[in-house]
Amino acid sequence: MGEPFRHRLRVRYHECDPQGVVFNAHYLAYCDICLTELWRDAVEGYAGMAAKGVDVVVAESRVRFLSPLRFDDELDMRLTIGNLGTSSMELEIDMERDGEPIAEVELAQVFVSLESGEKISIPEEIRKALERYA
Amino acid sequence: MGEPFRHRLRVRYHECDPQGVVFNAHYLAYCDICLTELWRDAVEGYAGMAAKGVDVVVAESRVRFLSPLRFDDELDMRLTIGNLGTSSMELEIDMERDGEPIAEVELAQVFVSLESGEKISIPEEIRKALERYA
Amino acid sequence: MGEPFRHRLRVRYHECDPQGVVFNAHYLAYCDICLTELWRDAVEGYAGMAAKGVDVVVAESRVRFLSPLRFDDELDMRLTIGNLGTSSMELEIDMERDGEPIAEVELAQVFVSLESGEKISIPEEIRKALERYA
Amino acid sequence: MGEPFRHRLRVRYHECDPQGVVFNAHYLAYCDICLTELWRDAVEGYAGMAAKGVDVVVAESRVRFLSPLRFDDELDMRLTIGNLGTSSMELEIDMERDGEPIAEVELAQVFVSLESGEKISIPEEIRKALERYA
Repeated sequence: MGEPFRHRLRVRYHECDPQGVVFNAHYLAYCDICLTELWRDAVEGYAGMAAKGVDVVVAESRVRFLSPLRFDDELDMRLTIGNLGTSSMELEIDMERDGEPIAEVELAQVFVSLESGEKISIPEEIRKALERYA
Repeated sequence: MGEPFRHRLRVRYHECDPQGVVFNAHYLAYCDICLTELWRDAVEGYAGMAAKGVDVVVAESRVRFLSPLRFDDELDMRLTIGNLGTSSMELEIDMERDGEPIAEVELAQVFVSLESGEKISIPEEIRKALERYA
Repeated sequence: MGEPFRHRLRVRYHECDPQGVVFNAHYLAYCDICLTELWRDAVEGYAGMAAKGVDVVVAESRVRFLSPLRFDDELDMRLTIGNLGTSSMELEIDMERDGEPIAEVELAQVFVSLESGEKISIPEEIRKALERYA
Repeated sequence: MGEPFRHRLRVRYHECDPQGVVFNAHYLAYCDICLTELWRDAVEGYAGMAAKGVDVVVAESRVRFLSPLRFDDELDMRLTIGNLGTSSMELEIDMERDGEPIAEVELAQVFVSLESGEKISIPEEIRKALERYA
């Protein structure tokens, strides 16, 4: 049984729109930031992956918006890997503010060659590193 | 039988990331731009809705990324309303570049009072205007 | 005597912040969009420049904010080249909405080798193309 | 003699463009983040100012770009108040990465009534709080 990866960030002013809440597209940017920190925790960072010739692209995203997020709020993200396939993985990122559910995100990511962009098998070292969040 | 609403835009340089492709979060921003134009076409614009005390919020988004989009590409969006409920609607936005599928997006939107933020029934006039895309 | 280059764009919802106006950083993004269109007009686009091994980087920017810009406003930009040096140029971009001054921007741009990133002389063909806006 | 206010942040992936460096407009967003933290340090945050009916708008910005900033870099900002006028202030924000100069920014900010948007005198309490960075 794995453990979720956690990351906290603070909402920036310009991420909020005239409704006074975080614009919906930014939730996916927050997920990307969480993934950057996951790579740092798991495999010497995105740069470490790139050094191995590995890149990751998003194949699918799904966001359920539960409660609005506002300027200066602190957002807690909890990432778990639901499925670790041959060349892809499915992630869930739960977003909360002070324990209140903000959004639920599902992401499907595909591992590709940094050079060719073609799908590749997840390198064994990276797979092992990811299994602790699965 | 309705007709899809169409909108075209051109990818901006700063919407692309170091991979040289449009960053995934921007696809939702593109959908928001398409919706702005839908409101202009259907109901005297977002301002026209606001004047009626009506606002719209995104409840759920789903994006399938099929092929990368690059700087200066022209993106064609085709929006159809799949379901028009009492206080919500489900949209599909198909994205293409020169006829090549780029992404498929599903959005669930909820109509709310501009003042209170509470869910409201879709005003009859707006419902009628939207039916032509359904 | 040259002629200004003109470009118009429409303010997008997510470019506006909780004050209801365009967030100040986006003015520089608007200038970048105007420059993209300048390259299209002058030298077969940014891609045309890249094909010649030429890139451009911003060395300095200055913005005077005169009047706020709001969602759905149409912004008119008028670009003139104030000085065309050996390897750099100085631009002015005046921003207006319906003839009302919105902002005045000055940009200093440096021509660099796309490969090395080192400063280069402006290629003669590009210089000639730019002289008509000077 | 005042002391500079300091804030550090990490460059996000989507803030970088196809050149692999932070897109120029984001430098102004970084300054805004630094100002948010200044308000937190000085006057119970931007919300504290808003509670007093005070808002701040940017009147002028100037950025000298000295060296490119890349994904995952840690950016150090050092803010000093150069001039504290009746209803405006001039700031300087020096940006560095590991001691290397990245950019120099000058900002002119005007204090306005949150309600009317009209220029106001800097409230005495806020002026006192800001003098320590002057």
